[in-house]
Formats: sequence, C-alpha cells, structure tokens
Amino acid sequence: MIDSNDFNSYFRYKDGVLHCEDVSIETIAKKVGTPFYLYSKKAIIDKINEYKEAFKDYPTIICYAAKANSNLSILKIFQENDIGCDIVSGGELYKAKKAGIPSNKIVYAGVGKTDFEIEFAIRENILSFNVESYQEIEVINSIAEKVGKVARISIRVNPDVDPKTHPYISTGMKKSKFGIDIDEALNIYKKAMQFKNIEIIGVHCHIGSQIMSISPYIEAVSKVAELVDKLKKEGIELKYFDIGGGIGIKYKITDEPPNIKDFANAIIPIVKQTGLNLIIEPGRSLIGEAGALITKVLFLKDKKEKHFVIVDSGMNDLVRPSIYDAYHHIMAVKIKDKTIKADIVGPICESGDFLGIDREICQVERGDLVAVMSAGAYGASMSSNYNVRPRALEVLVDNNNFKIIREREDYNYLIKLEEEVIQ
Amino acid sequence: MIDSNDFNSYFRYKDGVLHCEDVSIETIAKKVGTPFYLYSKKAIIDKINEYKEAFKDYPTIICYAAKANSNLSILKIFQENDIGCDIVSGGELYKAKKAGIPSNKIVYAGVGKTDFEIEFAIRENILSFNVESYQEIEVINSIAEKVGKVARISIRVNPDVDPKTHPYISTGMKKSKFGIDIDEALNIYKKAMQFKNIEIIGVHCHIGSQIMSISPYIEAVSKVAELVDKLKKEGIELKYFDIGGGIGIKYKITDEPPNIKDFANAIIPIVKQTGLNLIIEPGRSLIGEAGALITKVLFLKDKKEKHFVIVDSGMNDLVRPSIYDAYHHIMAVKIKDKTIKADIVGPICESGDFLGIDREICQVERGDLVAVMSAGAYGASMSSNYNVRPRALEVLVDNNNFKIIREREDYNYLIKLEEEVIQ
Ligand SMILES: Cc1ncc(COP(=O)(O)O)c(C=O)c1O
Ligand SMILES: Cc1ncc(COP(=O)(O)O)c(C=O)c1O
Repeated sequence: MIDSNDFNSYFRYKDGVLHCEDVSIETIAKKVGTPFYLYSKKAIIDKINEYKEAFKDYPTIICYAAKANSNLSILKIFQENDIGCDIVSGGELYKAKKAGIPSNKIVYAGVGKTDFEIEFAIRENILSFNVESYQEIEVINSIAEKVGKVARISIRVNPDVDPKTHPYISTGMKKSKFGIDIDEALNIYKKAMQFKNIEIIGVHCHIGSQIMSISPYIEAVSKVAELVDKLKKEGIELKYFDIGGGIGIKYKITDEPPNIKDFANAIIPIVKQTGLNLIIEPGRSLIGEAGALITKVLFLKDKKEKHFVIVDSGMNDLVRPSIYDAYHHIMAVKIKDKTIKADIVGPICESGDFLGIDREICQVERGDLVAVMSAGAYGASMSSNYNVRPRALEVLVDNNNFKIIREREDYNYLIKLEEEVIQ
Repeated sequence: MIDSNDFNSYFRYKDGVLHCEDVSIETIAKKVGTPFYLYSKKAIIDKINEYKEAFKDYPTIICYAAKANSNLSILKIFQENDIGCDIVSGGELYKAKKAGIPSNKIVYAGVGKTDFEIEFAIRENILSFNVESYQEIEVINSIAEKVGKVARISIRVNPDVDPKTHPYISTGMKKSKFGIDIDEALNIYKKAMQFKNIEIIGVHCHIGSQIMSISPYIEAVSKVAELVDKLKKEGIELKYFDIGGGIGIKYKITDEPPNIKDFANAIIPIVKQTGLNLIIEPGRSLIGEAGALITKVLFLKDKKEKHFVIVDSGMNDLVRPSIYDAYHHIMAVKIKDKTIKADIVGPICESGDFLGIDREICQVERGDLVAVMSAGAYGASMSSNYNVRPRALEVLVDNNNFKIIREREDYNYLIKLEEEVIQ
C-alpha cells in the first residue's frame, strides 16, 4: 500500500496527516515555509543505541561519518551520545570541534588532505589520520615535525572487494583512487616505520556505501585481518582496526538493509582474532532514515505521455536522484482516497531535476506537501545554490517540539561574497 | 599535441607557463590560493560581440542565461555590453537587477515558479514570463490581479525535437517536464486570452543544452513558426519569438561547436517569415570557454592498475563530470617534456569524484597547478559545500590585471546559519 505507516515508524500518519514524531508536518511548513529538511531526534538516538547495543561486548569506537550530514545540531546529538566522528576535511574537523566532539574520537580519511588541513588536525591531536598514499605519510610526517608533534596514522588498505552498490560509491576496488592495495600494504607499513613524527596505530578500510549485505564486509575484514597477522609477524603491532562505514538503508519499501546486530555478530569474531580495538564509521545508516525533505506542490501538469507534480524543491536540494539515479520513497503529507501516478519533479531547468519517476502517491493539489523519505544522509550536505536557489532550511523534531537547526539563506546572503568585491 | 596553445586562445602558454590573457596563472595562484575559477573578460566580450554581429541585421534581444554563471561581476559585463538576462528564479532576478540589467530585457522561464517569485517578477515589470503550464498562467494572472498589474507572458512550447545531447539536458522532447506540447499550444493560447491581467506577447522554446549541430534548431524553429502562423489565423498576434539557448562549446580538442554566424543565418530567415522579433538565450556558449578551474596537485599515487593525480578541487566545485559524465579538457599549467597518463581526481570521498579519467598531460608534481578547461558555465553555479569544503573563489582577468570576483568562504561563514540556532 502506498502512503502508509509501514515505511518509517518515525514518520506516521495521524488523522490523515503525516507527522514527524508527534508534530504535524503541515504545522511545521506553516511556520517555516518550504522546502525544508526534517529530522527526527528519536530516530537518530534509537539508531545510535542500536549500534551501541550491537557492539557493546567489544571495545569499539563509533565514529559518525560527518559527510553524511554535518549540521551542527545533528553533530551535537552524536556528541551528547558519546559518538566520535569520521571526517574528510578541515571544515568537518572545524564543525566536529564546534559540536564538542573530543579529538580522541576523531579519525580523518580522504585522498586529498591539504597541508593546512593536516596541520589543523595535528594541532587538534586527532586520534588517527587514515592515510591513503605513501606520499601523504611523508607529508604528514614533515608537517608534524614542523609543529613538533607526533601524528598517529592508520593506513587505508584496499581489499579489492565488490560491495555491489553504485559504482560512484564503491570505494574498495583496485581501480579506485582510495587506499593502498592490500598486497602493497606490508611494504608501505615497513617504510612508514622509519618516520620519526609518525606513530602507526591502525589499519583502515572502507569498501563503499549503501551496502545491502554483510558478506562483502566479511570478505574485506577477513582479508585485512590476514594483513594484521602478517604485520604482527614483522613486528608491527597495531591498536585499531577501522572497518569504515557503508551499511545501507531503506530507500524503497521493499529494501531490506542489514540488521546492525547481525553485522556486529559477523564482524566482531574476525576482528577479535587480531586482538585490535574496533572503529566503525557509519554515516548513512545513522542519519539517513531519520530525515525527510519536505516540499510543496507548485503546479500539476498533465501531458498526454505523463503527469507531472512540480514541487518547490529540486536537484539543488537533493542531488542523489540526478547523480546516482537514486530512488527515494515519496509520500503525500495528506492522505487521500484517490491516488495518481506521476513524475515528481523540481523547478530546476534540467530534465535531470527529478525527485521520483512514475510514482504512485495520494492525489495532491497545488499547495499540498510531499515528503521525500530517507533524505537525512547526503541530502543537505550535498545541496547547492544552483539556479541561485536558497538551500532548504533544516528542522529537528523532538517529541512534540521542533526547532530550526539551519536558517534559510536569503538573497542577500547568497550574493555577499560577490557583492563586496564588485567594483 | 597535449598541453598546447591550440585549445583556447585566451589561455596560452608563455615561457612555458599557462596564462589567462596576459596574466600568469601561477602568479594568481600565489596570490589567491587554490582552487579557483578563472575567467577571461576578453573571451566573454568577444563572444558577446560574435553574437551581436551575427544577429545585427535582425531585431534580436540577447538574454544571457544566468544559470550558466550568475557571478555578479560576470552579469555586470553582460549588462555593460547591453545584454539582457534569461532567469529561472527569484534569486537570479535579484542578481540580474543588482547587476543593473534592465527589466525590459529579462525573461523568466522554469516549471516551478513560486508565488513569491512571480510577484517579485511582476513588480519588477520583466519583459516576459515564459510559462510552462496552463496552471501557471492562472496563477500569474491572479497574482497580477492582486498587485494591480498586467503580466506579459510567452508560452513555452515543446516542439518534440531530439537535440542529441545528454538526456539530462534535453528539454524539448515529449516526455519532458518542460513546456506545452506544440499540438496543444493553440488551445492553451486561446484559453490564455481570457485572462484580464495577462498580456500574451510571444512564444518560447528551448530544446536542450550543449547542442553541436544546427539542424535540431531548424527543425524546432520551423515547427514553432507554423504554430505562429496558426495563431495569427486565429487572431492571436505575437511580438516575440524566443528560441532559447543551447549552442554547444568545445570541451574536447576535437569538438567543433556550431559557428554563431551560421546559426544566425539558419534561424533568422525562418523567424523573419513570422514577422516577430527574436529573443535568444545563450548561456554556456557565452561564458563556458571563457572560464577554467585552477587546482593544485596534492599527491601523486601510483597503483598497478592506474596512476592518480590528486588535486585540491573536486565534485563540490565542478559536478559536471560526476553528474553528466562530462569531459573537460585538462592542461598542466607548467609545460614539461615528459607526459603522464593518469586519472585526475579530487579529495571527495566518492569514486564519482573525478575531473578526468585516463588523461595524458605534462608530468606534474606535488604543488603544480592544473587547469580544467571550459569550466566557465555550470561550474561555479552548480558548486556545493559537500564535505564541508569552502567553494572555489572566482577571479576575473582583464588584460594584465586580475581581481577576485567572489571571495572564498571561510569555515566560520560555512556554519553561520547553523550556529545562530544551536541551543
Ligand atoms: C572513509 C569513509 N568512512 C565512512 C563513510 C560513510 O559511509 P556510509 O555513509 O555509507 O556509512 C564513507 C563514505 O563515503 C567513507 O568514505
Ligand atoms: C529556458 C532555457 N534557456 C536557456 C538555457 C541556456 O542553455 P545553454 O546554457 O545551453 O545556452 C537553458 C538551460 O538550461 C534553459 O533552460
């Protein structure tokens, strides 16, 4: 059945109107305008607890991958719940620190760290640089030397495993720019030992995102565990085994993402044999289903070949459908008896600007609201001002309260950095 | 030959270093840091003059499509050269007005205009709303009535022509969300006549973008000209024939985009028969080749299967390669004898974050600069803060001078709208 309460238990119809927790989405829209991202605090905290529970019997640091959603108030929820942070830039480090996340729970991946960013992270004394190339180790060492510190690193290895997801978010295969090939890793570890301002503390891998089965993890983690053994034999003792993120979420009604407990039960025994502490870096699975993009219907358009529902949010707010051909379940905020089948499309002047193709939803009229589900991850964080559109504001619901956690940009804000310099 | 002066005459090597007009790109990078967008003012003005010259014998309004690049200083160049503006949002209208573009040269397309935007444009008394659905006409009429004005409209018709370009930027086919099917148009025109606060002044079509041959234009414009004839017979007299934009540019060395003069010579005779004034809406072809994205090499990475040049700019700055699989010619800023073949990739944590795959360029080292060419259109305007990365700043070169035309965001700026609301 479409537009039912089966999709997401934090977004349910009450009296025919979709609510986030106990707040009517229509009420929020009246207050803040559209479009906006909407998050359920309870959904986030429940997911955090699910992860904590699943990994409670093994020493594990959960580092939320901030790239999924780096809103300061969202990061604050993770901080309040003792979650660390996986970052990929100086900007993310800046935000993680602003949110109060302790440095000893911050790991920093990414193939393209700048000198400025490396120095920033060394000074903040983060737990680990997850390094992606030999040259990066050299550079980190020389910057650490310059500032008179020792930088902790883990080496990201590439286990050459196919995670069976979108090629753009498969990151653990041989032709990928990420990591060091696992058969070269031993050699790089040995070479890295020589650096005075580097302390090697771990091994890292991340095989991709939106992964819907546990088996690629088992394969990858087993391969990396073998490497850890080899390193031990060579006298290279590590402390951390970072298995990255990537657990998938429910985008379609029929999606069945892995259960976190099953994931933990499959991974922990393999890691246990190495004796290392575990680091995990979930992003999407912690925040994705907790969020929806709420947008208003501007026009209905009937063509012979197609019906279109034109809404006030588009690819500048949510680029995933355009870029990955991603599917997001879409629900009408008001339940009606009649349904329609239509493309739900945005205002941007590109045919690639769609939210959903050939979707069946309850009949909507001009002015009605529509919810694009599972938009909490890689939604707001990837949004742009294309077509000079202010980005969607963001709202957090907590029980029967809601608050704005990112203001809407106004036109004046959009031109600020250009206006000051115009002659 | 790679890395030669054949690609773009505004970006040429002098003493082995790539210059934009008369300024060394290395000099600019030293001053402003990387990454940055770089535009040649002369390239823009020469293109403007090429269009003016090609259409000088026929009454034509050239409306630059601001979506391609809406930097205020760029819009100012168009304004100073008497070019109008094709907009798709209130934000673009705001910027066009800031740049001093007169309302009687502004046309406004887009399937998803909000009430706020429609009212804004009516009050600014723009030349024409290019309307995309019947419901939009009703809404414009009622808003015009409310503010006591008459809104001028043209109807965007969909001539069902295949422009043979990327499906995401083909906009004139039947299954597209854009426009009104040409065989329904007569009927809609008749119905639109009834509205008191609407003045119908024209017909509009836009068949797509990055179009490399003139024939789809001839086909589309001929079809629309037939409609104009039919309308005349029904007593509906128009004033403007807006043929949209879409002329392609050179992304690859081998690309041969249409010559503007040939384009004009093919189109004008068809439009002339209708007796209407012409409006054209070029975006990419006015600004695309005038711009490059300049980025610095952070790391070189050799894998058995591939070499990687990792640079400090990625899909957050230039999303075209990821989203359209677009090809941009890439040149090393310093000429060297040796060349390499490598993937040029960015720092973003996605495999989709690439600027070029398997490219042959002059051997670069850490710290060297690389120029991603033909990035003036749909580059900065589509950029985002993904991975909490400040967007590239923008620089305009004029002869032997350069100036910043958009400042770089700092971390503080990036969190502003989130920080104010955190509890
Ligand atoms: C190194 C690393 N860790 C963690 C993540 C988070 O992945 P996900 O959001 O799929 O859990 C990513 C995503 O790209 C990543 O690159
Ligand atoms: C209505 C309209 N006019 C003009 C343009 C500009 O196209 P181009 O940049 O290809 O010239 C576009 C691009 O999407 C458009 O949608």
